[in-house]
Amino acid sequence: MTGIKHIAILGSTGSIGRSTLEVVRGLRGRVKVVGLAANARAEELAAQVLEWKPIAASLADRRRIGPLEAACHQAGTELAGGSEGTISIATLPEADLVVNALVGAAGIEPTLAAIRAGKDVAMANKESLVAAGSVIVGAADAAGVSLIPVDSEHSAVCQCIQGEPRSAIKRIILTASGGPLLEMGREEIANVTAEQALSHPTWTMGRKVTIDSATLLNKGFEVIEARWLFGIEAARIEVVVERKSIVHSLVEFVDGSVSALLSPPDMRLPIQYALTYPERLETPFAGLDLDRVGSIAFERPDLDRFPCLGLAYEALRLGGTAPAVLAAADEVVVGAFLEGRLSFGSIASVLRDVLALAQPGDAECLDDILEADRWARVKADEIIGTEGDRRRA
Amino acid sequence: MTGIKHIAILGSTGSIGRSTLEVVRGLRGRVKVVGLAANARAEELAAQVLEWKPIAASLADRRRIGPLEAACHQAGTELAGGSEGTISIATLPEADLVVNALVGAAGIEPTLAAIRAGKDVAMANKESLVAAGSVIVGAADAAGVSLIPVDSEHSAVCQCIQGEPRSAIKRIILTASGGPLLEMGREEIANVTAEQALSHPTWTMGRKVTIDSATLLNKGFEVIEARWLFGIEAARIEVVVERKSIVHSLVEFVDGSVSALLSPPDMRLPIQYALTYPERLETPFAGLDLDRVGSIAFERPDLDRFPCLGLAYEALRLGGTAPAVLAAADEVVVGAFLEGRLSFGSIASVLRDVLALAQPGDAECLDDILEADRWARVKADEIIGTEGDRRRA
Repeated sequence: MTGIKHIAILGSTGSIGRSTLEVVRGLRGRVKVVGLAANARAEELAAQVLEWKPIAASLADRRRIGPLEAACHQAGTELAGGSEGTISIATLPEADLVVNALVGAAGIEPTLAAIRAGKDVAMANKESLVAAGSVIVGAADAAGVSLIPVDSEHSAVCQCIQGEPRSAIKRIILTASGGPLLEMGREEIANVTAEQALSHPTWTMGRKVTIDSATLLNKGFEVIEARWLFGIEAARIEVVVERKSIVHSLVEFVDGSVSALLSPPDMRLPIQYALTYPERLETPFAGLDLDRVGSIAFERPDLDRFPCLGLAYEALRLGGTAPAVLAAADEVVVGAFLEGRLSFGSIASVLRDVLALAQPGDAECLDDILEADRWARVKADEIIGTEGDRRRA
Repeated sequence: MTGIKHIAILGSTGSIGRSTLEVVRGLRGRVKVVGLAANARAEELAAQVLEWKPIAASLADRRRIGPLEAACHQAGTELAGGSEGTISIATLPEADLVVNALVGAAGIEPTLAAIRAGKDVAMANKESLVAAGSVIVGAADAAGVSLIPVDSEHSAVCQCIQGEPRSAIKRIILTASGGPLLEMGREEIANVTAEQALSHPTWTMGRKVTIDSATLLNKGFEVIEARWLFGIEAARIEVVVERKSIVHSLVEFVDGSVSALLSPPDMRLPIQYALTYPERLETPFAGLDLDRVGSIAFERPDLDRFPCLGLAYEALRLGGTAPAVLAAADEVVVGAFLEGRLSFGSIASVLRDVLALAQPGDAECLDDILEADRWARVKADEIIGTEGDRRRA
């Protein structure tokens, strides 16, 4: 890598944010952290500010900003707050690359702001592409910046197609671990607890994405993201289950050859690839020991037991703001499940109902997306209320 | 592919040669055959001349050239013979790319002639790189031409490293099907018949290379080829057994990610890649059905039961003309085995003895290689004679 890359991290106290800082630590001076933004964890952000001494830091939740003031003063870091604060980190003049690891639809606007400020964006905020794919990709094309995937699956696809023209791609095959419920029957799945659904077999992630992995909706979101990141229509994006999370995705080329990307299930690898892209630098992390891997098997996912995967394809088929509706409704629905207000089996049915009621319009600007997002949240809450009433009855 | 690529095929009546013509047929006019050369199969070559109407054709065995005359006359094809004839096809002014599918050391000189005539060479003649790697790579660098692998393993590596700088490569991992004897114990292997050794589980190939696959020396030769094709020292080239021949090789990068190339075991795929490189064109051949593949497993090869693989590393360690000695001795030894003059178990011991007696010199020019080749053949014959005496005694 020629020179030092300057990065800003949005969502620095979350799972991906912390792993990003760990990767930066391993890159020993090749990457410099110039901005940090978090949502509400003031103490953690204060500790990060003291370690990394960024030019600026921001906490979205202004009420909790207190503990940050001393740290920022000590580190010589400019302090901001609120959603404007997040935007100021996303557009920090000193940053070359913005890592957007915010969770939920709150991450969309900062992505757009970073792109418009001419930054490359390492995309760890799903909603930016799931809900607002057309808007984000259009803005990135207009600004001439790169959207670099952080998800292990999209990073794998990105690596598989290096040096290949887009016309050489026949199919993208995203792999799924299958989540913790893969062996369960339909009835059993319908009533799993939050604890069961949170015990992911191969990856340690945030709670929301872990539940989405259990329903396979996370994989559906990844299909939507791949559609936008790689400009490939949904019919040419498939999902296979590979339980060990060793094969992170595959690309079939028009000549019948299939390229696959393998590594231990360690998010630090795709994060580092995103930070050093298009170069590769050495890592201190353990590599893949093929002898120990044993066998790798591929299975077709069961859409009957995991209907959420099909809903993502349905949202892409409906087009416009339908994926935004699905993503927003899912935030509400997963929240209700984690709070014990909804059964696991009802996640798919509520989402299906919301999608069926939606009349998706064009997704031409951020307002279109945010309006669909608001509508879907209200509608999901309504339906969850009705479900709750039905269950209590 | 812009324009039509003009190719000459050396060894057009052999297994790879015929598959190459089948691929050309599928490419419908994107590739034009301008030259064909075969060793001794006059009737087959005559039929090819009538179908493809090349500018020139040649048969190495002049005594059998008779049946070709009428065909060449009818097709308007210039006819040549002898080893000069092969060279004339290798250097045909109208050819952009020479596919060298000759078997054995006889293929080295035509490779060199093609390179010096400014042709890219699709390398299906193992000995060119195994015996004469330093000479061939030096000549290709000087002439500024590309050496494009045809072997499925090296083609896979070539595809895995597209778009990656050489400095990004940490290890090359060549896969081996393991051959037909993988499950046998040492004693059983020592006495397998030619018929057993010829029944390869996944690939249909010529007899010589099938025996080399059974001893795993073929994989050892591929290690030597990889060393020259990719400029990577032997310590960073490994072999793993993958019995289904679905994963054709892997490349580990410095950041710990591993790229793998998968396809059905069909030589037409790497042949087509070599013909259309660096582009990919559609194939009419069946693609990979991941669901049907089931599981893929990786195992470490057993050098104790398959010592020939270790001999290839030993030849690379000795350097200079040692690989040429190993390759030439192997031609004699495999011939003797197929004729029933040598047990399967003695293949490795004779090769080890020849290598131990060799005093490998520098491999600076073709003469160095050819001298080592001649010495090794004589020495192998001597040792086989002694072995035969010992067995009869």
